[in-house]
Amino acid sequence: MTEVSERECVTLEELKKKMADFARERDWDQFHSPRNLLLALVGEVGELSEIFQWKGEVPKGLPDWKEEEKVHLGEELSDVLLYLVRLSDICGVDLGKAALRKVQLNAIKYPVKLNNDDNNNNKSFSESD
Amino acid sequence: MTEVSERECVTLEELKKKMADFARERDWDQFHSPRNLLLALVGEVGELSEIFQWKGEVPKGLPDWKEEEKVHLGEELSDVLLYLVRLSDICGVDLGKAALRKVQLNAIKYPVKLNNDDNNNNKSFSESD
Amino acid sequence: MTEVSERECVTLEELKKKMADFARERDWDQFHSPRNLLLALVGEVGELSEIFQWKGEVPKGLPDWKEEEKVHLGEELSDVLLYLVRLSDICGVDLGKAALRKVQLNAIKYPVKLNNDDNNNNKSFSESD
Amino acid sequence: MTEVSERECVTLEELKKKMADFARERDWDQFHSPRNLLLALVGEVGELSEIFQWKGEVPKGLPDWKEEEKVHLGEELSDVLLYLVRLSDICGVDLGKAALRKVQLNAIKYPVKLNNDDNNNNKSFSESD
Repeated sequence: MTEVSERECVTLEELKKKMADFARERDWDQFHSPRNLLLALVGEVGELSEIFQWKGEVPKGLPDWKEEEKVHLGEELSDVLLYLVRLSDICGVDLGKAALRKVQLNAIKYPVKLNNDDNNNNKSFSESD
Repeated sequence: MTEVSERECVTLEELKKKMADFARERDWDQFHSPRNLLLALVGEVGELSEIFQWKGEVPKGLPDWKEEEKVHLGEELSDVLLYLVRLSDICGVDLGKAALRKVQLNAIKYPVKLNNDDNNNNKSFSESD
Repeated sequence: MTEVSERECVTLEELKKKMADFARERDWDQFHSPRNLLLALVGEVGELSEIFQWKGEVPKGLPDWKEEEKVHLGEELSDVLLYLVRLSDICGVDLGKAALRKVQLNAIKYPVKLNNDDNNNNKSFSESD
Repeated sequence: MTEVSERECVTLEELKKKMADFARERDWDQFHSPRNLLLALVGEVGELSEIFQWKGEVPKGLPDWKEEEKVHLGEELSDVLLYLVRLSDICGVDLGKAALRKVQLNAIKYPVKLNNDDNNNNKSFSESD
């Protein structure tokens, strides 16, 4: 695990390759169709939601959570990420490039204002137009 | 956009910083509580699902999709990723490190077998035990 | 609309029939496969989540919501219900009967206690065993 | 269980009352805030998705599913329904009335056509305008 702890720059490309190797080595490519992976992703989002479901509002940084709860949270966040990376790969989408492009589009859509007073109603940067 | 197209190694750390800057510049930190971000993530997963909802089974690589559909798909995949990165950051979880650790755990849980015959029932690498 | 307002007992069976008629009259049965409907359901859950995503904790009864927001909420809750009813029908599941059975199972799994002190950890009545 | 099997008309009102009684008897009202219930609903939708995730396309009626798989499916569909009913109640929304109204709105939005040729692109009856 030392190896992992010292890493600072995990790339999406690296995760993509790990997932592709993982599937190929286990002969799982046959199951990794786009909609199968999408439903698996939805399943993981459900497990992520279950962690938060009975907690009421939760402050940033999760100050009152036990270490084991945080580890569990990290695992569920990772499951969502790994299926998302795999789904993108199987669909032929370069997720890293698409994400950088989306950040640029968001910056155009929601320009920084000197006066933020009227910004409250459009804080979602991902709504459909 | 040239800048984006030439990039090969987008890191999760880089996306995290971009999202943090984006929120701070727009005074949106006040809205980025864990459960707000989680529900925003669920909303984006819903939009991602809508892209696939009436299509029946879809082959790998999406050979019959129009270019604009693929661009739209890339945007929705990105929205899920960006909220996931932001949620992890706000929760104090190092998503890249957690993802590498999860891949290692999965490799232990689902060892590669010489004979894959009995692998069909445990192909989900993220089930709770 | 008067007709609707005076109704007190909407049955799942009635909604099932309305959805089946609706689809047949529009020649939509061809699109209503189990996984198509499931993804449509996920899409609606996403829209439902978007209503709540930037609101922080919301008190019961939604005392501060505008009437139009409540109407919108009713529409999204309905969309989830209608796809759920349709999905159940297409899968051959009697949803009303299954729901009554599940309530009975939950009552066995979570018996009423005179002393509720140790009830806090198992308040989800639907976890997998 | 005989009682359940013979029922034909399960109403949403009846499920609402059962859920309210269930929560009150266990002192769970304190946990049933709108966003807690919404996240619980998302968790159940995740479990429902997991049932379908590795199956590829599934035909209507689920002809090849084992009886125990169908029973499990009925339980997950029910969990989604029960949380949806409870969430609606806690939000002060009459779900049955809202659903009937939504069906009427859908009928106006998607009128039956003698010629269905151009119906293929708007088969989702719940898109936002």
